[in-house]
Amino acid sequence: MEDGGRIKARLYVADSLAVPTLGLDAPRAHYLRHVLRLDKGARVAVFNAHDGEYAARIDGFGKGWCTLTVEEKRRAPAPESDLWLVFAPIKRARLDFVVEKATELGVSGIWPVFTRHTAVARINVERLALTGIEAAEQSERLSAPEIFPPAPLDAAMAKWPTSRRLLLCDESGGGGPIAEILPRVGTDGPWAILTGPEGGFARAELDALRELPFVTPVGLGPRVLRADTAALAALAIFQALAHDRLGSPPPRFHAQS
Amino acid sequence: MEDGGRIKARLYVADSLAVPTLGLDAPRAHYLRHVLRLDKGARVAVFNAHDGEYAARIDGFGKGWCTLTVEEKRRAPAPESDLWLVFAPIKRARLDFVVEKATELGVSGIWPVFTRHTAVARINVERLALTGIEAAEQSERLSAPEIFPPAPLDAAMAKWPTSRRLLLCDESGGGGPIAEILPRVGTDGPWAILTGPEGGFARAELDALRELPFVTPVGLGPRVLRADTAALAALAIFQALAHDRLGSPPPRFHAQS
Repeated sequence: MEDGGRIKARLYVADSLAVPTLGLDAPRAHYLRHVLRLDKGARVAVFNAHDGEYAARIDGFGKGWCTLTVEEKRRAPAPESDLWLVFAPIKRARLDFVVEKATELGVSGIWPVFTRHTAVARINVERLALTGIEAAEQSERLSAPEIFPPAPLDAAMAKWPTSRRLLLCDESGGGGPIAEILPRVGTDGPWAILTGPEGGFARAELDALRELPFVTPVGLGPRVLRADTAALAALAIFQALAHDRLGSPPPRFHAQS
Repeated sequence: MEDGGRIKARLYVADSLAVPTLGLDAPRAHYLRHVLRLDKGARVAVFNAHDGEYAARIDGFGKGWCTLTVEEKRRAPAPESDLWLVFAPIKRARLDFVVEKATELGVSGIWPVFTRHTAVARINVERLALTGIEAAEQSERLSAPEIFPPAPLDAAMAKWPTSRRLLLCDESGGGGPIAEILPRVGTDGPWAILTGPEGGFARAELDALRELPFVTPVGLGPRVLRADTAALAALAIFQALAHDRLGSPPPRFHAQS
């Protein structure tokens, strides 16, 4: 079979890709057929963290489904950063935004936690997962971040996997500057970043967090950051200090020259 | 005069604050009266970079105006970071977002530049300035960022103030990791950060930029970042490495305990 043209879309598929044929569910079939207006024979890419990325060709559409013939491998699976974002949820538009940006910045897991001053009571986990998948599709990631079930902060801390260190972004000034502390404590191994709600952490919450053996408190500087900005700033800084000697981005699907 | 109650709003006022009485324009008067529903006698804060921040009391409203009696000084003027964001404009919702976040992250100037792959042709400078002012009001800044008139990239470089260094965020891998390069070149003095459009810089643009004596190319790591994410990540990392040994944020207007 000839190379056969440009890749028209990039799709996260959780199932194994090391198969001759894949079936897509109704939303994906709809997306390819009615949003991108692709026909039988069009080429797409499919990917997941376990198998890497493959080219595939649309075999056919039916009512609520689409089948793909899997073709050549385009990228091998590669290690990604093991970094969670644990954050107090915020209003819906900003929440989507945090998930999108955190995905681009390489988080492997996202855990919404309810703190004393958290003003949001309900989280649509499925929606957040879809936002993460879309961001992974757009940003050439091979994995999509896992969204953990929302929990109260103290419950999350009670069942915390203690081998994972937790960077507490403390806007009250209780931690040293992030760029001084992180190189000192070292960034190897699994980490998570914890940021608070718009109202900040309560004093008692900060006191309890600082007592935990896996917590490292830091400050993000002298500026007042919104909750979403603080989460993204902390992630960007962490990645720059920890993982970013690994090279430059993969060639972009949307790249121009 | 007694202390007289909580501050209900924080307003950027460009005029001198070292006066007994201030007049506000129609949009501000409308905001205080009809959005916040404040009455005569309510307390607000007014600020700018030159004078710092003062408490003020609403004296009265008229058709399209409001007068304030200036009361005690709340904060003295303080040095802020001299850091510009120079960026290829993007679609409107993301553009507002970049200006909001860049303001929180402490930029003093924002300069939209048109590159070869920039898909946005028109910029509403006045709207961006208002977005910057709102973000300054929300984030306890004493200044609002200046928005410079949009210009083609080569024209902007031709009139560049050469004492200001320019950090080129090169997603093609042409620069070393930002967290290695910045400490090596030093971050003192005026700086600017330059990020490209969704399509990336053109090869010829990158080649020309790298020839300029004030340019330092860096990479933001192995991940593919959207244009807005790249701008915010670069600002957050720069501030963490450059200016953030200055302390913790001022007490928040909206702070809870």
